[in-house]
Amino acid sequence: MKMSQLLGYRFKETPADCQLASHALMVRGGYMKQMCNGIYSLYMPTKRVTRKIESIIRDEMDKIDGQEVMFPVVMPASLWEESGRYSAIGQEMARFKDRSGNPVVLGMTHEEAAVHLARGTAQSYSNYPFMIYQIQTKFRDEARARGGLIRVREFTMKDAYSFHTSQEDLEAYYELCYKAYENIFRRAGVPEVVAVKSDSGMMGGAVSHEFMLLTDSGEDTIVLCDECGMRSNMEAADCIVENEKREEAPLTKVLTPETKTIESLCEFLGYDPKQTGKAVVYQKNMTDEYVIVFIRGDLEVNETKLRNYLGEEIHPAAVITEESGIVAGFIGPVGLADGITVVVDQSLKGTNNIVVGANEENYHYTGLNIERDLPGTQFVDVAKTYEGAICPCCGKKSIRISRGIEVGNIFQLGTKYTKSMEMTYIGSDGKPHYPIMGCYGIGVGRLAASVCEVRHDDYGPIWPMSIAPWQVHICAIKSTDETVRATADGLYQALQAAGIEVIYDDRKVSAGNMFSDADLLGVPVRVVVSPKTVKRGAVEVSMRDKSMREDVEPDKAAQFIMDLVHAELAKYQ
Amino acid sequence: MKMSQLLGYRFKETPADCQLASHALMVRGGYMKQMCNGIYSLYMPTKRVTRKIESIIRDEMDKIDGQEVMFPVVMPASLWEESGRYSAIGQEMARFKDRSGNPVVLGMTHEEAAVHLARGTAQSYSNYPFMIYQIQTKFRDEARARGGLIRVREFTMKDAYSFHTSQEDLEAYYELCYKAYENIFRRAGVPEVVAVKSDSGMMGGAVSHEFMLLTDSGEDTIVLCDECGMRSNMEAADCIVENEKREEAPLTKVLTPETKTIESLCEFLGYDPKQTGKAVVYQKNMTDEYVIVFIRGDLEVNETKLRNYLGEEIHPAAVITEESGIVAGFIGPVGLADGITVVVDQSLKGTNNIVVGANEENYHYTGLNIERDLPGTQFVDVAKTYEGAICPCCGKKSIRISRGIEVGNIFQLGTKYTKSMEMTYIGSDGKPHYPIMGCYGIGVGRLAASVCEVRHDDYGPIWPMSIAPWQVHICAIKSTDETVRATADGLYQALQAAGIEVIYDDRKVSAGNMFSDADLLGVPVRVVVSPKTVKRGAVEVSMRDKSMREDVEPDKAAQFIMDLVHAELAKYQ
Repeated sequence: MKMSQLLGYRFKETPADCQLASHALMVRGGYMKQMCNGIYSLYMPTKRVTRKIESIIRDEMDKIDGQEVMFPVVMPASLWEESGRYSAIGQEMARFKDRSGNPVVLGMTHEEAAVHLARGTAQSYSNYPFMIYQIQTKFRDEARARGGLIRVREFTMKDAYSFHTSQEDLEAYYELCYKAYENIFRRAGVPEVVAVKSDSGMMGGAVSHEFMLLTDSGEDTIVLCDECGMRSNMEAADCIVENEKREEAPLTKVLTPETKTIESLCEFLGYDPKQTGKAVVYQKNMTDEYVIVFIRGDLEVNETKLRNYLGEEIHPAAVITEESGIVAGFIGPVGLADGITVVVDQSLKGTNNIVVGANEENYHYTGLNIERDLPGTQFVDVAKTYEGAICPCCGKKSIRISRGIEVGNIFQLGTKYTKSMEMTYIGSDGKPHYPIMGCYGIGVGRLAASVCEVRHDDYGPIWPMSIAPWQVHICAIKSTDETVRATADGLYQALQAAGIEVIYDDRKVSAGNMFSDADLLGVPVRVVVSPKTVKRGAVEVSMRDKSMREDVEPDKAAQFIMDLVHAELAKYQ
Repeated sequence: MKMSQLLGYRFKETPADCQLASHALMVRGGYMKQMCNGIYSLYMPTKRVTRKIESIIRDEMDKIDGQEVMFPVVMPASLWEESGRYSAIGQEMARFKDRSGNPVVLGMTHEEAAVHLARGTAQSYSNYPFMIYQIQTKFRDEARARGGLIRVREFTMKDAYSFHTSQEDLEAYYELCYKAYENIFRRAGVPEVVAVKSDSGMMGGAVSHEFMLLTDSGEDTIVLCDECGMRSNMEAADCIVENEKREEAPLTKVLTPETKTIESLCEFLGYDPKQTGKAVVYQKNMTDEYVIVFIRGDLEVNETKLRNYLGEEIHPAAVITEESGIVAGFIGPVGLADGITVVVDQSLKGTNNIVVGANEENYHYTGLNIERDLPGTQFVDVAKTYEGAICPCCGKKSIRISRGIEVGNIFQLGTKYTKSMEMTYIGSDGKPHYPIMGCYGIGVGRLAASVCEVRHDDYGPIWPMSIAPWQVHICAIKSTDETVRATADGLYQALQAAGIEVIYDDRKVSAGNMFSDADLLGVPVRVVVSPKTVKRGAVEVSMRDKSMREDVEPDKAAQFIMDLVHAELAKYQ
């Protein structure tokens, strides 16, 4: 490919709306163009990167006996009604009516489609297990599309669905897929991706893992234990705290003027936040009914765990009405108005002599011991864990908090879909059974952007050879010079003939311009041919990651470069 | 791949709703499953066929310097408003509002997206020409989806867009693409695809060609001349007729009771239909205004040509009201009521002494000579041509009518999109100009089904080696026999190790069952291992197209089959 014909505009200034380095570099490098919020067209370099990622994924899925299939993007609503998700999923699913007035949806995931395709064909236990997968466009109407290709509304995804006759068989296959995912991320150049326990959310099912690329710019919070290797998404992480035992004190109402925050209250009383019980007020989405969480004053509520416990959607209370009887800033578990759902976090279990609101303007209770004063209270874990908390696996105070980008996920779905959609097989016992399912996703564009996020410098991406848009970038500086032109042309042809992927900068632009564009394209091997290199009887070969720079005789350059490319490729096998 | 795990159900009975052989065979063979009208999921064999077709297309597009890109499926309506097509295209374009209430559409073609991606980047004439293409899912809400994958609502398409600085450059590239298309169809195993002149329809632009796979079951009508090689879609074909000169006669009103059809009129008067002028009544879609076409009695109206001439959408008149003054069954050009758009077909030019309606119940005029009696009449070609008509290219009476399936198309678009969407470049003259565009489509799924339509027998598809789902099909009959099992297993492993794509029927089913399933999968090379073949010290190798059947020693089978596969593959290079 010649740069003079390559479509896409490259520039130096970081666009104002780019928070992530990968987003800025991929916009600056002519990788994509936004059409509207969260919807992009991709230029050739990105398409080449994603195609290579897709090849790696396909190869690893085929190795674990995956059957590549193709599901539709537009699906009848009736199929989603079978599983119950047509009404369960919110606005992120696009819905419209076709020309005949039939309601249809755009696929954001394909469990229903997988069951539809498999249903009625795999009727004997001897047909199991099997796995089907596709690499296809999906649409998810994200409220907060951001970060370039990291979080978009339309994206290409590999989604796989496995079907089993027993939980043991699912678990064995889950393990295989887990390893295939490790291979995929290693081969795509990001071996540092780790699997973490996750919340299953709208997918249903019990066990699930997210594959996280650890990076400070990631939007997911990850909980790690370096002692025992426990890893979990914050959303799914148990929070275990230790409470110091204080001297018992009687429950006493005290005047605490202007102490609506934990901070001001602690200052007023000279208490540590750990000796307080904080109230956090939510409302149920469906009814606006209030939900109050009492939690140790130094901790925060994990809304995913709260949502899962309540079994319904909630949001932080927008307004607290007078009629509710809730006295904002002075809310406490003793003497709270009726008709409010109360959730008491596990962190308040075993505490004593703490201060909580007295449900009366300017008053708090001190000396509370919930187990003594409110016998029968149920404690639930709805707290966010924190740096230095107790690891739920090994029990050591070793919790570490990190950030990451989710690049893949795997779920054990159980029979949620096969049961609701009536897919059965005849078992070896001659009776009908529901198959047990697993599902396995990887976002292709997000993975490409994530690699860029952790493999770049200030000047552009540093693509791993396995997924780089091209393998070699030739810069012909002052190509009006006949020897430069002939040398560069010859090398371009020789490398192409040998099956090497070359981008050739044949433009009449300055060396500075060429190098900054080459940095933005991030091709691993760079070859510079200029009047200077020609004069010293060489072409200059270097690596984008700055690990090597060497003069090579023009006659030997093609072979030298081929060897370099193949050696690099071998690293990602 | 082992048959025991292959998802998809194969059966013998032809489904009732299948008109096309390819549709029936692909349903019977477990290639696809309908989700709703015109929307299918594809099983592994189809996905393998379409992936190979995509590889061939990609290869040929890259050879003519195509840049593979990716456009979105969901696009903002505002982009389509720029080109004017948001309102110009009817119900076949799916439209809905996203969660923020913004109107969006599903892409059914991507001219607007191509201009959006290119606009602002190819700013100098030196960046031209270039071509961008994608292989992507499209949705077109067809009113009459049918024929399996031949005419669906959701489909995968390769669509390419080229940009030029002159008409000559576009034409030169158009020629290159034309040849690339010939290569694609040849390599996909259907060299009999021919290019025909076509109507540009909603795409705009002047010159366009459709690539037609000639087959009696095709839904397009094609006009051919074997004398000069002229080929055209019926929609775009000129109709040239010869009119015999009769003796002049005076215009005379005659009583012709109960002669509302050309047939009854000819019988009553003893005339040949060629001596009549027929009236065909249409209405304009927007206003319901009547349009009457007068045409020689033996011919039919070509509605596409009529539509293009009128510059608006029309439909056959549903009802003819009394107020219109139109006397159904007796309509003629002489004395017709006012306020009706009249179109006189070219076929009536040079006729004389013909009979037409007198616009009065039960009366006709005989002896009409339009040029004599209605001087100043404009003649327009809006007739369908017919077998034996005059070729507009060579002038011989050699028109032949055939049928075909459209598997690709290429259009010269001119500046329709670049002008309306304000895409310019600076020319060598230092001034801004609008680039000239071409566009080039191939439906991937339709091509797969079309190959099946012309390459099958009663028992299943006969896939060309270049796009077959697998290259070799091993049938292990009575695999409980240890030698059979060992021989088949060994061959399966040896061939796979050599990179040959093998489907291995390892099931415990009858030989008849295996063979009928193998016929339905249509894999080119079949290998039968059975107690009988083992007994005679052989495996039986045959071709699906019945061109060969041979016993081969088990030790030599792998090499023999590899040679066979490579020799077949070479035919499609």
